[in-house]
Amino acid sequence: MPIFLNTAQPDFDQRFDDMLHMKREDAADVNDAVATIIADVRARGDAAVRDLTKRFDRLDLSGGLAFSADEIAAETAKVSAEDRAALAQAANRIRAYHARQMPEDMRWTDPEGATLGWRWTPVSAAGLYVPGGQASYPSSVLMNAIPARVAGVERLVICVPTPDGVVNPLVLLAAELAGVDEIYRIGGAQAIAAMAYGTGTIRPVDKITGPGNAYVAAAKRHVFGRVGIDMIAGPSEVLVIAQGVQNPEWLALDLLAQAEHDADAQSILISPDEALAKAVVAEVERLLPTLPRAAVAGASWRDYGTVIVTRDLDEAAALSDRIAPEHLELCVDDPDALAQKTRHAGAIFLGGWTPEAAGDYVSGPNHVLPTARSARFSSGLSVMDFLKRTTISKLSPQALAAIGPAAVRLAASEGLSAHGLSVSARLETLNGGAG
Amino acid sequence: MPIFLNTAQPDFDQRFDDMLHMKREDAADVNDAVATIIADVRARGDAAVRDLTKRFDRLDLSGGLAFSADEIAAETAKVSAEDRAALAQAANRIRAYHARQMPEDMRWTDPEGATLGWRWTPVSAAGLYVPGGQASYPSSVLMNAIPARVAGVERLVICVPTPDGVVNPLVLLAAELAGVDEIYRIGGAQAIAAMAYGTGTIRPVDKITGPGNAYVAAAKRHVFGRVGIDMIAGPSEVLVIAQGVQNPEWLALDLLAQAEHDADAQSILISPDEALAKAVVAEVERLLPTLPRAAVAGASWRDYGTVIVTRDLDEAAALSDRIAPEHLELCVDDPDALAQKTRHAGAIFLGGWTPEAAGDYVSGPNHVLPTARSARFSSGLSVMDFLKRTTISKLSPQALAAIGPAAVRLAASEGLSAHGLSVSARLETLNGGAG
Repeated sequence: MPIFLNTAQPDFDQRFDDMLHMKREDAADVNDAVATIIADVRARGDAAVRDLTKRFDRLDLSGGLAFSADEIAAETAKVSAEDRAALAQAANRIRAYHARQMPEDMRWTDPEGATLGWRWTPVSAAGLYVPGGQASYPSSVLMNAIPARVAGVERLVICVPTPDGVVNPLVLLAAELAGVDEIYRIGGAQAIAAMAYGTGTIRPVDKITGPGNAYVAAAKRHVFGRVGIDMIAGPSEVLVIAQGVQNPEWLALDLLAQAEHDADAQSILISPDEALAKAVVAEVERLLPTLPRAAVAGASWRDYGTVIVTRDLDEAAALSDRIAPEHLELCVDDPDALAQKTRHAGAIFLGGWTPEAAGDYVSGPNHVLPTARSARFSSGLSVMDFLKRTTISKLSPQALAAIGPAAVRLAASEGLSAHGLSVSARLETLNGGAG
Repeated sequence: MPIFLNTAQPDFDQRFDDMLHMKREDAADVNDAVATIIADVRARGDAAVRDLTKRFDRLDLSGGLAFSADEIAAETAKVSAEDRAALAQAANRIRAYHARQMPEDMRWTDPEGATLGWRWTPVSAAGLYVPGGQASYPSSVLMNAIPARVAGVERLVICVPTPDGVVNPLVLLAAELAGVDEIYRIGGAQAIAAMAYGTGTIRPVDKITGPGNAYVAAAKRHVFGRVGIDMIAGPSEVLVIAQGVQNPEWLALDLLAQAEHDADAQSILISPDEALAKAVVAEVERLLPTLPRAAVAGASWRDYGTVIVTRDLDEAAALSDRIAPEHLELCVDDPDALAQKTRHAGAIFLGGWTPEAAGDYVSGPNHVLPTARSARFSSGLSVMDFLKRTTISKLSPQALAAIGPAAVRLAASEGLSAHGLSVSARLETLNGGAG
């Protein structure tokens, strides 16, 4: 049974707080194992990667780590025309959305004569980790690789493990549609180490993104600093706020779509309408046993599913901000007005015709989003993750004359005399008319 | 003696690579100590913070953790009118620069009928760490606090240790000019823990920024995920590219300004003009002994100072990109043209009248910049660090009809049936004319 709360309960605050801080993930401590793997890859390069792949994936890579163009063509030829069309439509829509995110360079000259601004440049090389086996999602390839390509990354690398040699042709097709340059059939901490430090075959990259298991997450934390990484994703969640005339089956399916991801996923329903909330819960219970992934979805719903009845929508919006959900579905009469009352969410889906699942695949916005309340301070994946900003300044002699004395003064107050001298030496030349 | 390289040397590549990967920092492993402190603050709150402050800062905070308005007024009254004016000019210029960084919300409707976009919202509360003692820099207070205020952060907190009760009045004045709401006289890992988890007195924040020693850095890594953090700054560096008619004394002072920060700092000079390079080095050697911080600057210059003579400026630009310097000074005839040839730098200073020190204090751009080659993949502090982006989507029934089938297809290929059903249930209603 999910957790039922009502804001009218006298102990609601405590119960809500308990729900909010429920631990949904027991990350195994794999740091020592990961440190050993990374050290091995740094020391022995390709040989280490081959040995580890034989051990963990039961796969002999003595013929090479990379997929050849022929192998990719042979695999992607297996994809049906319908799947290919769906993937292409998704890729085009994701590309169009992310193209709008490209930020602009700026440059201006202020009244003192200082020309200031910034410019954006892409990272040179990015590596995308794609999990193997059941969680090998072609949609994630698009969501990670397309923003990198849009940002202008020159070299885009994928590592995807293929345990026992099993390949997902749709993953290779997604990589092709996204314009990936190199695909290596390696996984785990060894793949992260290879991308961060390089091997004989694999040149190092500057940024690594993409989801993975506990070993991959620990390896990403480990190499952070040597390369950039995206966020370390935790278990996923959806919050549906419902009110007015809504189809309970649709909302139940939205909650179940989250729950089927993972037993650690969380589905939350908030409504000022207790009857509607009960109708949605009844639909969840009816539909759950019919799902192929009933065991996973059932565990998530039983352990973390939460239903909260509120006095009104304002209260729902306030609770939503405390949850800071990864996905926020507003199935209410005026979703735009309610969206204005919330501040913290990874993605907002407005109205009953906008199921989260459409956004997971084809709407265009990224599905890599901040989990576990981190939407309070972070954003989903975007082209910005593959760009960096360089600030620019250019002072005219007049500008230095106008602002330099303050720098000299502040340098003195901080005890940094060479800082002050580097400005005052120039000012003296100016004042002396020499130079 | 600094490292002298010339790209004409037969073993230049190896020697450059050795320089690039020189280890400049031996971070002590303080993780266990920091974990203990954080656990103590989480368990005992204010009492733990008071005990730790008594132990580490020899300071009794039984009267309260925060500076009172009267204390702040009494301290800031000690600041001279000249220092106050310099700090105010810096604050105004930093505010004006960062105000231009505010990104815009976007929203559009595509031909399929999908309304898409994103919006930016500030984090609700940010905490700024300010080191105590010698490294208690008022300029850093401005550089961290002003972007947060410009972003619209509602609650802005500072923690600054005051060992033995010693306060830097300029730090308090900078906090006042930047509009900080609460100032606590605590430091170290206990301050980071207090801001991340909250105590009886200090409400938790969502994002923590600011520099600190090994304990502070380890504590920030520790609480990352619970709150957002800025980068973990490493030792600082400057790269000066020089050519044409330049004043060797000015460039020498720019190199020394970097070196005086820290014995781990690095100053690099690249020039195609060996005579100019030698003249700058001679000025460094002449000026070094005259500096109050000669010991620090001398150690940095001796251990990490590097001079590289190149065939031409193109070669200099290529080496600069491999270094990816935090600060890049282009003291050449056409600095704008040379800037166009580089891609990776935290900040670029164009021309001989733009000493880095002006940018450290008053030019306007932020002085918190990516160190240790991380400009390959990251940017300096900005208003973006205090904002997060929420993606928005709103599908019309027609839009769902146009893109929903692809989502259903991709969900099936990934084995996520509830995802597919949440879309197809809506499509059936549409096609059946019901709903």
